[in-house]
Amino acid sequence: MKYYAKPIGRLINELSKLPGIGGKTSQRLAFHILSMEDEHAEALANAIIDAKKSIHFCSVCGNLTDVDPCSICSDASRNGKIVCVVESPQDVMAIERIKEYRGLYHVLNGAISPMDGIGPADINLKSLIVRLQEDDTVEEVILATNPNIEGEATAMYIARLIKPTGIAVSRIAHGIPIGGDLEYADEVTLLKAVENRRQL
Amino acid sequence: MKYYAKPIGRLINELSKLPGIGGKTSQRLAFHILSMEDEHAEALANAIIDAKKSIHFCSVCGNLTDVDPCSICSDASRNGKIVCVVESPQDVMAIERIKEYRGLYHVLNGAISPMDGIGPADINLKSLIVRLQEDDTVEEVILATNPNIEGEATAMYIARLIKPTGIAVSRIAHGIPIGGDLEYADEVTLLKAVENRRQL
Repeated sequence: MKYYAKPIGRLINELSKLPGIGGKTSQRLAFHILSMEDEHAEALANAIIDAKKSIHFCSVCGNLTDVDPCSICSDASRNGKIVCVVESPQDVMAIERIKEYRGLYHVLNGAISPMDGIGPADINLKSLIVRLQEDDTVEEVILATNPNIEGEATAMYIARLIKPTGIAVSRIAHGIPIGGDLEYADEVTLLKAVENRRQL
Repeated sequence: MKYYAKPIGRLINELSKLPGIGGKTSQRLAFHILSMEDEHAEALANAIIDAKKSIHFCSVCGNLTDVDPCSICSDASRNGKIVCVVESPQDVMAIERIKEYRGLYHVLNGAISPMDGIGPADINLKSLIVRLQEDDTVEEVILATNPNIEGEATAMYIARLIKPTGIAVSRIAHGIPIGGDLEYADEVTLLKAVENRRQL
């Protein structure tokens, strides 16, 4: 690290902490940032700080938002009878991209994973149960957790919790390849998955 | 872009301007930054701002530095008789990594490229000539520009400029990389390797 000035070393070091950014890439990014116009570099730095400052979890659904409740929860044109349960805000974006689903969401911000010591209490699940108890307009809960071990376990767990309440519980269809990631699914596959959701 | 809150969209947009960072990657990075501890995100933002603020070109060699002259130029233990000419600060780092070269540098911050409209006046070349005129301790200039069309043209141009001054001018060797495979070497490299063969 002694080959470059300290501020460059620090920038390379901070960039290399980002996921998928290795040593060479962080070096390339750092030198690119140094060659950028001052205002563009500042825009990047400010975007980071502003996003961290203004973004928080929606008190209703758990999605990331800068207003509370989030723009989806407060959208009166959406169908409040259906709540789609997903693991992350990225998954909300993925489902919004298919432009077909008009219900609401509930973001767990995680999945049950005993291997990692993540239990039902460690994800945004209790608020879903409370929400379903308080809001009797909800008629169906679509479980759109990822089609992997943790996601399936989470879906089964939530299904068992909700079933007794009489609310319909469905699981998105396995059109999505097992082991895949919702965030990276293409729109058509995702649309099929929502259409073919099955009763549990 | 309407699927996520504005500050997230802005962060994704700023990140996607970085080289090699596409849509999906910038999204992944943005959500990673949002999930980071506040102080880590701030450290990243501050590293960007500090680097942009404190880093400038060394008035002697043109390298990026936070002091002037840079730590290499002001290092009395280095051999001032040799100046190695490179295209970029990254090249300085690459040569420093071999831990063998103890001379000084001159960073052109570019290469002559008529195709891109970059002439000798657009790179940090004039200061090299002035430097060689004013500092009569320099005995050799090593041209370590990249082995491509622009780098070769730049090296030839500088060699022609310096030759009349009586200072020795050399070019780094081209050949088969150590650990490389003759079978997979391209024709031009192989030709250079044969042409530049040394007596054993």
